[in-house]
Amino acid sequence: MTKKIMVVINNRANYSRIRSVLVELRKKNITIQLITNSAANLSKYGDLLNIIKKDKFKIHSKIYSVVEGEIPQTMTKSAGLIVLELSALLEKFKPDLVLTIADRFETLPIAIAASYMNIPIAHTQGGEQTGSIDESVRHATTKLSQIHFPSTKKSMENIIKMGEDKKNVYLTGCPSLDLIPNKIPKLDKSFFKKYRYVGNLTDYKKPYIVILQHPVTTEFKNTSKQIIETINAIKNITKQIVWLWPNVDAGSDAISKKIRTFREENNPKNISFYKNFSPVDFLRLIDNADCFLGNSSSAIREGSYLGVPSVNIGSRQSNREKSKNVIDVDYNAKKILNAVNYQIKHGKYKKDNLYGDRNAGLRIANIIKKIKKINIQKKLNY
Amino acid sequence: MTKKIMVVINNRANYSRIRSVLVELRKKNITIQLITNSAANLSKYGDLLNIIKKDKFKIHSKIYSVVEGEIPQTMTKSAGLIVLELSALLEKFKPDLVLTIADRFETLPIAIAASYMNIPIAHTQGGEQTGSIDESVRHATTKLSQIHFPSTKKSMENIIKMGEDKKNVYLTGCPSLDLIPNKIPKLDKSFFKKYRYVGNLTDYKKPYIVILQHPVTTEFKNTSKQIIETINAIKNITKQIVWLWPNVDAGSDAISKKIRTFREENNPKNISFYKNFSPVDFLRLIDNADCFLGNSSSAIREGSYLGVPSVNIGSRQSNREKSKNVIDVDYNAKKILNAVNYQIKHGKYKKDNLYGDRNAGLRIANIIKKIKKINIQKKLNY
Amino acid sequence: MTKKIMVVINNRANYSRIRSVLVELRKKNITIQLITNSAANLSKYGDLLNIIKKDKFKIHSKIYSVVEGEIPQTMTKSAGLIVLELSALLEKFKPDLVLTIADRFETLPIAIAASYMNIPIAHTQGGEQTGSIDESVRHATTKLSQIHFPSTKKSMENIIKMGEDKKNVYLTGCPSLDLIPNKIPKLDKSFFKKYRYVGNLTDYKKPYIVILQHPVTTEFKNTSKQIIETINAIKNITKQIVWLWPNVDAGSDAISKKIRTFREENNPKNISFYKNFSPVDFLRLIDNADCFLGNSSSAIREGSYLGVPSVNIGSRQSNREKSKNVIDVDYNAKKILNAVNYQIKHGKYKKDNLYGDRNAGLRIANIIKKIKKINIQKKLNY
Amino acid sequence: MTKKIMVVINNRANYSRIRSVLVELRKKNITIQLITNSAANLSKYGDLLNIIKKDKFKIHSKIYSVVEGEIPQTMTKSAGLIVLELSALLEKFKPDLVLTIADRFETLPIAIAASYMNIPIAHTQGGEQTGSIDESVRHATTKLSQIHFPSTKKSMENIIKMGEDKKNVYLTGCPSLDLIPNKIPKLDKSFFKKYRYVGNLTDYKKPYIVILQHPVTTEFKNTSKQIIETINAIKNITKQIVWLWPNVDAGSDAISKKIRTFREENNPKNISFYKNFSPVDFLRLIDNADCFLGNSSSAIREGSYLGVPSVNIGSRQSNREKSKNVIDVDYNAKKILNAVNYQIKHGKYKKDNLYGDRNAGLRIANIIKKIKKINIQKKLNY
Repeated sequence: MTKKIMVVINNRANYSRIRSVLVELRKKNITIQLITNSAANLSKYGDLLNIIKKDKFKIHSKIYSVVEGEIPQTMTKSAGLIVLELSALLEKFKPDLVLTIADRFETLPIAIAASYMNIPIAHTQGGEQTGSIDESVRHATTKLSQIHFPSTKKSMENIIKMGEDKKNVYLTGCPSLDLIPNKIPKLDKSFFKKYRYVGNLTDYKKPYIVILQHPVTTEFKNTSKQIIETINAIKNITKQIVWLWPNVDAGSDAISKKIRTFREENNPKNISFYKNFSPVDFLRLIDNADCFLGNSSSAIREGSYLGVPSVNIGSRQSNREKSKNVIDVDYNAKKILNAVNYQIKHGKYKKDNLYGDRNAGLRIANIIKKIKKINIQKKLNY
Repeated sequence: MTKKIMVVINNRANYSRIRSVLVELRKKNITIQLITNSAANLSKYGDLLNIIKKDKFKIHSKIYSVVEGEIPQTMTKSAGLIVLELSALLEKFKPDLVLTIADRFETLPIAIAASYMNIPIAHTQGGEQTGSIDESVRHATTKLSQIHFPSTKKSMENIIKMGEDKKNVYLTGCPSLDLIPNKIPKLDKSFFKKYRYVGNLTDYKKPYIVILQHPVTTEFKNTSKQIIETINAIKNITKQIVWLWPNVDAGSDAISKKIRTFREENNPKNISFYKNFSPVDFLRLIDNADCFLGNSSSAIREGSYLGVPSVNIGSRQSNREKSKNVIDVDYNAKKILNAVNYQIKHGKYKKDNLYGDRNAGLRIANIIKKIKKINIQKKLNY
Repeated sequence: MTKKIMVVINNRANYSRIRSVLVELRKKNITIQLITNSAANLSKYGDLLNIIKKDKFKIHSKIYSVVEGEIPQTMTKSAGLIVLELSALLEKFKPDLVLTIADRFETLPIAIAASYMNIPIAHTQGGEQTGSIDESVRHATTKLSQIHFPSTKKSMENIIKMGEDKKNVYLTGCPSLDLIPNKIPKLDKSFFKKYRYVGNLTDYKKPYIVILQHPVTTEFKNTSKQIIETINAIKNITKQIVWLWPNVDAGSDAISKKIRTFREENNPKNISFYKNFSPVDFLRLIDNADCFLGNSSSAIREGSYLGVPSVNIGSRQSNREKSKNVIDVDYNAKKILNAVNYQIKHGKYKKDNLYGDRNAGLRIANIIKKIKKINIQKKLNY
Repeated sequence: MTKKIMVVINNRANYSRIRSVLVELRKKNITIQLITNSAANLSKYGDLLNIIKKDKFKIHSKIYSVVEGEIPQTMTKSAGLIVLELSALLEKFKPDLVLTIADRFETLPIAIAASYMNIPIAHTQGGEQTGSIDESVRHATTKLSQIHFPSTKKSMENIIKMGEDKKNVYLTGCPSLDLIPNKIPKLDKSFFKKYRYVGNLTDYKKPYIVILQHPVTTEFKNTSKQIIETINAIKNITKQIVWLWPNVDAGSDAISKKIRTFREENNPKNISFYKNFSPVDFLRLIDNADCFLGNSSSAIREGSYLGVPSVNIGSRQSNREKSKNVIDVDYNAKKILNAVNYQIKHGKYKKDNLYGDRNAGLRIANIIKKIKKINIQKKLNY
């Protein structure tokens, strides 16, 4: 029986995608060895440490691993640092299982450290299909993991096709949907005020769209060109815009620079820039938005369940299973603008259970609790 | 067209498995950026640097990455160091392609560094099935690689089943077989004398068996118990024994200790211990042996082509495709002894082309030469 | 004779302090192996790479070593990364001499890497006395260095007292003063516009004061409290303020946060925030300022030569030799304000040659050119 | 008051030099955070972990930091790894003081990590004078340390001359002498049998000489030449020889190789090679030896107290204070042989208290216990 489970949190999105599992594991008295890593420890990416504290999870150790530069080389060095430092923490904490999340560049080094040290790995959100380095990270992590918790039926099938043993693959749905309350409250007066922003405060009573566009690391050299199309598109939008800064991946510095230049040169009155929102406030934010624009997987996962009219730009989410709420467009200002206008006009979509039914956390915790013995020796199951 | 190709050599066996490719690439005037890494730089694991020098390949850089300890944690730290240091070398040398070899624990960190830095990867010997951490490393590396050069038909099919695009998978055979000359010379007077050994000099005119048993990293805690079975088995063998020290993997220290204790306590007159042989001499050695005992994949690859009577112990090679020349046995002194005696009696097996026809190097070089453009974005091909 | 000299540049200030040496070495055809490290590679700390490019120095390699967090632990990890990565570069470039600069936290790891690899070290600005970790770094670096280029007579004497051999200690003056032109031009219309700033553009025709306050790493926990005194002091100043962001040391994040909060809450119309100025523009900036406030050593070095009325806060520069242009004050808003007002009223001070006569670069280059053989074996000279 | 004190042990000699301090600290209920690092964790350098276990000290963490290669570059990389990994341990254990020992290449990275993280440092055996990188390491560590525990009066004076505050410098004697019992027993039957050796078992009843020669890292390229002189010298000695393998410094591989070649080619019957002895047995070994040859500081410290006739070769101990028991010779076979013969003939010397009176551990523990508050800000005291 699994008694000690290590979970490494890399950033805010990561935490949203595992929080419900942690809550359920705690109820079952399984020891959670929580490690915060990478952007999770850096206040410039939002105040995750405080959120975790409020949730009363004990942070067992912090790995400072972000090598500044936001280019492929520094992302790679960060990966090396994670392997190095996690080796000592695994030795110290000797977990029975490491639970690793989705497809971050930090996810694979965690899986390497655990597998080289003969510690079994459970992996959430495997089997999905996308672009960017995420695609490589996700499937390589699957090949290092013993237990799989895919979000969708198709992902489950993909994992099995890749040679994993059917009996170790559990269709659970995506834990990020578990955070969605039965009824999402409307925004209120204090909503935007709670957060630090640059620009003018968003008026919570007026309609707005949300933008969140991350770099595509495998198209690193085109990053600036790509974000400029988005910027050019939204120049023609007068509605309020809530713009979230990108994550720490290679290319994010280029995106931030272009956004900053745009802001300084145009001083747009309808746009506010936010670092992050708490997991639940983020759901409120997109649920109440007229449109969710960018390339975040939240538009596709939580957005699908909530029916958020979304526009997905470029290759980062290509091949991912999507509900009707998402329109795919290329890096093209005009097409982006048209799609946004279409979605604003369309309004809310019907709820879709494609990525789960808000019970993933409980299912995963139950399975972890029940598992007797995990054979660390992997075997291609053909 | 690929103009600069980086190849990282991790140890002697690694070099044997890629040497013919290097020779053919050189003929085609493709720039080879050769990096020696890990055990390849350490004289205690044999004199590989000199062998490479004699082959007139220029070493572009050396990565010292072996953290002493030979336990899972130090193997993991070594992996972290490789990622860190290779990131700088990839930045400096900017190869068009990284060619990574088989399934060493060093193979995966190399693939991570290259893929995170958007450099395409070609991988040899993917799709095979074995035990140990090699199994995880091999398939995870496949999921990070753009081009695949499997050795056998079944491995090719496995790679495609795992979701790789058929048109990037080339069945070439295993380059290690390319080193086999048309006619392997018998041993001569100088054969054993050239190498450093501990114990009595092996008499080249008398029959002998060869032992090479590596640790199984995923069974790290059983390492000592496992080697003791082998030691107990060969106590009953009076024939000459040529025993090769294991590689640098976690557990090798435990194996070396048990061997050393055995030697000190028993002072066996019929056993000599060698660090390594040159690639071609190694082939002569096993071709002329009465039996090849242990868990080296050479028994299965080169051994198959040469028809060397071999006994394969334990799980390290479990599930790997084998020819008739190999008998699998468990960690059990009695069974090992019986199998060795059976193989000695049986003598040479018929040549089998399972792992290739000695043209793999040329095929791989031709393909690399021809490839126009490699899409670094990976995509699960279901 | 020294033929290849490696110089590692850590940030803009570092470059200002060695630039004239590089210019003179180049004239003498000595190969300069320029490495940019740490903040020098990061655009968020200013555009140093472009400045170096304009000066036509070739960057041989870049070390990305800043681990994000800006706390003592991440500063320490950065130091570890520098040692690791520089070991490979020293092996590759095999310099005859490493020239290391002053007392940055990056300076000591550079000296360790060079001395452990038996490469002689020349050190500028040794023997001075200050607070912060700089004091430890500076003297430890002296104990690892073979050649010393102190800036002042007293520093020279200190180095000799510490046990260094008199004949290896050369009083040269500080190379940062060499950048001062014979006549410093007044500011002009384009001066502030060339640089990125936050706040209102400074009016070059109106008087202004300059603020640059770095964290004191050895008083890390008091950082916020310390900067708040400065903020409270300048709330009462109506004159224009040019505020420069602090360096990358542990604590700089705390300083930046307090400044940002102040800015957001007070929206001060008379303050502009700048990331950096080119070396020569920085000299123009302070030369034309009514007062230079903070704890930068530039107030003491270049400020002394230029006679800039300066107010030095706290312990960072305690014990450093100062000219009359500097008033020392404690972390105390009222005292800071009084001192600033006094200095504004006082106006320019008389030029003082305490830190040199603008010929340090030439002297250092001449000595390096002349040195025959450096004994790497250090010896306490008592 | 100091409550938690971290001590990092790097190898067997390190442990001998601090053991009595640990024993006394334990008696005073001060928490000892013992970290084993470098060779201390590697069984190939002797069984130190067991010795520590028998002494009932709890090992709080192990740092695996030896990068294989035994060249200057790998020594440097090891230093980088120590800084990296210790930063996390200091964060975790938050000691009130770090006690760092003598002048190992590992000593300085420990001091850097502690000082960059604002943790005060106490340093033993500072102020002494020698050759090799030890000389640089020792004095640089002094410049990073707040508290000093020199062994001799002259070292104490040197530390003060270097600018340290007299009131932080405590003359305590060398703790390694504390291990010397009132009466050192003669060797007995079981003495040599307890240890692993190569060659013939030394006859404890017959006279013998002891050899221990470490590499001089600053003369790395001459290492082979230097040891060959020693080998050539002892070819002419028929007395029994107890030869200890060198430490892990750059060059030790070269020494070991030459010794091994000599052994294989000459098969000397009178020489046995040992990895190590327990601290107390080591004292018995040298106390009963006819001569102690090499360049170990034990010949000079413990040897002085015990009056062991010693021959010190080359520059490693040059400038160190020595008693009459030591004859210095150059790397020269003939001179070495003559000196050894002279010392054998001379026999035991008179006891000398130069390096202490066997009460250093108690003195150091008393001072640590008493210290109220340590100012981490260093200050050159001129």
